[in-house]
Order: sequence, then structure tokens, then C-alpha cells
Amino acid sequence: MVTWGKRRSVRQETPRLRPRVSPTDLARVDFTELVPDPVPFLGQAAYIQLEFFESLAKAVATAPTLPAKEGLSAAAGVALRKHHALIAELRLLGVEPDDVMAPFAPATDRFRQASAGADWYELLLGIHVTSGMLDGYFSRLSSGLPSELGARVRSILHEGGSAIVLETELRSAIEAQPGLADRLALWGRSLVGDTLLIARSALRASDSADRWGAQVEPVFTELIADHTRRMDALGLTA
Amino acid sequence: MVTWGKRRSVRQETPRLRPRVSPTDLARVDFTELVPDPVPFLGQAAYIQLEFFESLAKAVATAPTLPAKEGLSAAAGVALRKHHALIAELRLLGVEPDDVMAPFAPATDRFRQASAGADWYELLLGIHVTSGMLDGYFSRLSSGLPSELGARVRSILHEGGSAIVLETELRSAIEAQPGLADRLALWGRSLVGDTLLIARSALRASDSADRWGAQVEPVFTELIADHTRRMDALGLTA
Repeated sequence: MVTWGKRRSVRQETPRLRPRVSPTDLARVDFTELVPDPVPFLGQAAYIQLEFFESLAKAVATAPTLPAKEGLSAAAGVALRKHHALIAELRLLGVEPDDVMAPFAPATDRFRQASAGADWYELLLGIHVTSGMLDGYFSRLSSGLPSELGARVRSILHEGGSAIVLETELRSAIEAQPGLADRLALWGRSLVGDTLLIARSALRASDSADRWGAQVEPVFTELIADHTRRMDALGLTA
Repeated sequence: MVTWGKRRSVRQETPRLRPRVSPTDLARVDFTELVPDPVPFLGQAAYIQLEFFESLAKAVATAPTLPAKEGLSAAAGVALRKHHALIAELRLLGVEPDDVMAPFAPATDRFRQASAGADWYELLLGIHVTSGMLDGYFSRLSSGLPSELGARVRSILHEGGSAIVLETELRSAIEAQPGLADRLALWGRSLVGDTLLIARSALRASDSADRWGAQVEPVFTELIADHTRRMDALGLTA
């Protein structure tokens, strides 16, 4: 899904979890060097928003109070607007969104189930952490898209309003329930690995997999720094 | 929630299921005579849309195909927009939407559960039948609101797009699965009673209960005629 840009100086490697070559042999890659293929980029980003919508709708349905239900319904609306706006971009490119999204469905569905948590609070933190990281990730990646499309995608993904709702609900729950902070801190940490795998899969579409192999840690370092800030804001140790 | 308009010639009755007076003693009431109190009207209508949203989100989450998921997500967006637009009208009236909606939550939640059905197809028909009847009902009732508010409410409730998605999915399922039509016809009939009870509750807010007692069958006759047309369009006997 992502090909390297003009500045690339990347060794051709087959994908693997641990590179066989020593790290110093590998090029370091940051966001400005990534050039995603628009169609799968939009398809994966759109399907991920649909999954956030489903998680938020579940949070609406199981909300313990009407104000929480109300706030989360607005957040669900934001995810749905992002989904439909990304779908509209796919249609502008002349492709059928369902066909483009379908390959991403199984892994994204599993990801949603894995980040749903054991109760409503874990569900909320799961959405907050994973949508925070992935919206930031796709937004940064979009700088490698053709410039007008990239600007539209950033504007779509930057629609706010969800994070504040999730943060408000989580904060008041953490204050009210002793012990919840420790449990949620653990849960938040456990979400990072799966989220980075989804982010990584966005860099490794089948047709460009053989060009994969650079050190993308610099890319992920920014995501993890954002994650830490997000957890700090809730008073949770990341 | 609803008071009678200027044209009323209604006997004052305490609410009961069967009037003790003979039917001919009762005034016949149609939609043009109903004057709903705006705040509870908007609160109940808004909460009902939130429940339709929840049902549609459940239909999204359990959709058997990606195109179905995609279409239903758009329908869920429509219900959510109606909900938020009605909430915005409550805020314009200077009231807190959660406070206004809260009294309607228990009965509406039960109604949603009762119309959820045994599988995805019954869930879809449940949404199609109940939202068709209740959107039509609240839209007609809104003609008794102050005229500008009434026009805005009708415009909110008239946003289309959901019914066609539900109809398309139901029709292709009915064609593909022998026996489904009979089961859905039965299910559709069983939904009418509960839906009319919700409609009736919109006419009977606590503060106007003692003005209740007219024959409102003409009001409900229109709803049932709409229901029959909706079932006919699916090839189902109403």
C-alpha cells in the first residue's frame, strides 16, 4: 500500500518481523518519505473508521447514563462522517469502495474485537487509544498522497469532538472508582502492540511488500509519543 | 404531551383503555386537531431516533455482507442526524435535552428490544416498520407545533435514504430465501401493536392525561394504511 518516495535509499528486503541484516544496514524512514497508494490507503482508512463507528455504537448502546449515551452518539456520528467522506474520495477515484475495503475487513474486525475490552470503560479506552493513534497515523501518512487529496484526507481525519467525549467519561470514571486507573493503565499498554500492527499493515500492501524492510521505528516513535501524551492526560501511566 | 386544538369538542375523560361512555359520545380526532407540547414532543421524537440509530448500528455490526454494512451505516447516519437535529431544537428552546428525553427512555428501550427480532432480517423489518410508522406519525403531529418549528421538524424527519436501504436488503433476502416471506409477514404484523402504543403515549403526557379520551382511531388509521403500503412493497401481507 505504501511505496517509497524519491528520497528513498532503501535496501530491498522481504518482509519479516526481525531483519536479518544488522540495523545499521537499514535506511531509517520517516513519514515524509512514505508515498501511499491512494486507493488501498483510502480503503483501509475508511474501513477502520467504520470499525470505530461500530465500537462507538456499542458504547452508546451500553452507556450507563443518558448524558454519556448522548455524548458518545455524537462521537459515533464523527466516525461515521469520516467513513463516508473517505468512501466519497474512493468514488471520486472511480473505484467501488466495498471492493477496496474488503481485503482489510478480516484483520480490522479482529482488531476491533481485540480492543473492545472487558467492560464499558475498557471499550472507551480502547476506542480512545486506537482511534487516537490511527487517526494520527493516517493523517500523517496522507502527506505522501497527491497534495489536494492529502489535504482533503487530513481535513476529514481532523474532525474533532470524539476524543474530548471519551476523555471526559474516562476521567470522571477514573476519579470515581478506585483501582480503575491501574486496570486501565495496563489495558492501555496492551493496546499499543495491536495498533502498531494495523499501522504497519498499512505500509505493507501486497504489491509493495517486496520493497519493505527499512527501519520504520522513527515513524512509530511519533505514534507512541502521542499515545503517551493521551494516557498522561487521563492520569494513566503509558 | 398533546393538547387539543381550538377545534376541540372533546369530553373530559380520565385515561383508560376502554372508554366507559359509548363510542358515539366521543369526539373523533384527526391529526389537524392535535396540538403537541413542543418540549416533550421533541424529547420523545429525539429519543426514538436515538433508538433507531442503536438498532441500525446493531444491523451494521451484524450485517452478512460488506455492501449491506455500508448501506446500513448510511441509514444509521440518517437516524443520528435526525436525533441531533431534534436535540438542537430542544437547546433552542432553552432546555437540557437529557432531562427531557429521560422520561421516555424506559418505554422506548423496551420497545427497541421488543422490535429487535430473532435474527438480522427481523431486525431490519423491525426498524423499517417501526421507523416508517413513527417518523410518519411525528411528522404529521408536528403540524400542530408552532409553524416554523413544525416546518423544521418535518424537514428533519423527512430526510430519506434509510427506507430504501432496508427495503433493498429485505427484498433480496425474501427473494433468495423460501419461507422468509411468511415469517416476516407474521413478524411485521406483530410489530404494529407496540408501535401504536408508543404513538399513543405521545398523545398522553402526564400533564394532559385528563384531557384524553377522544376517539383517536382516525389518527391511527392513517398510520396503519402506511404500514400496509410498506409491507405490500416488500410483497408481504400486512
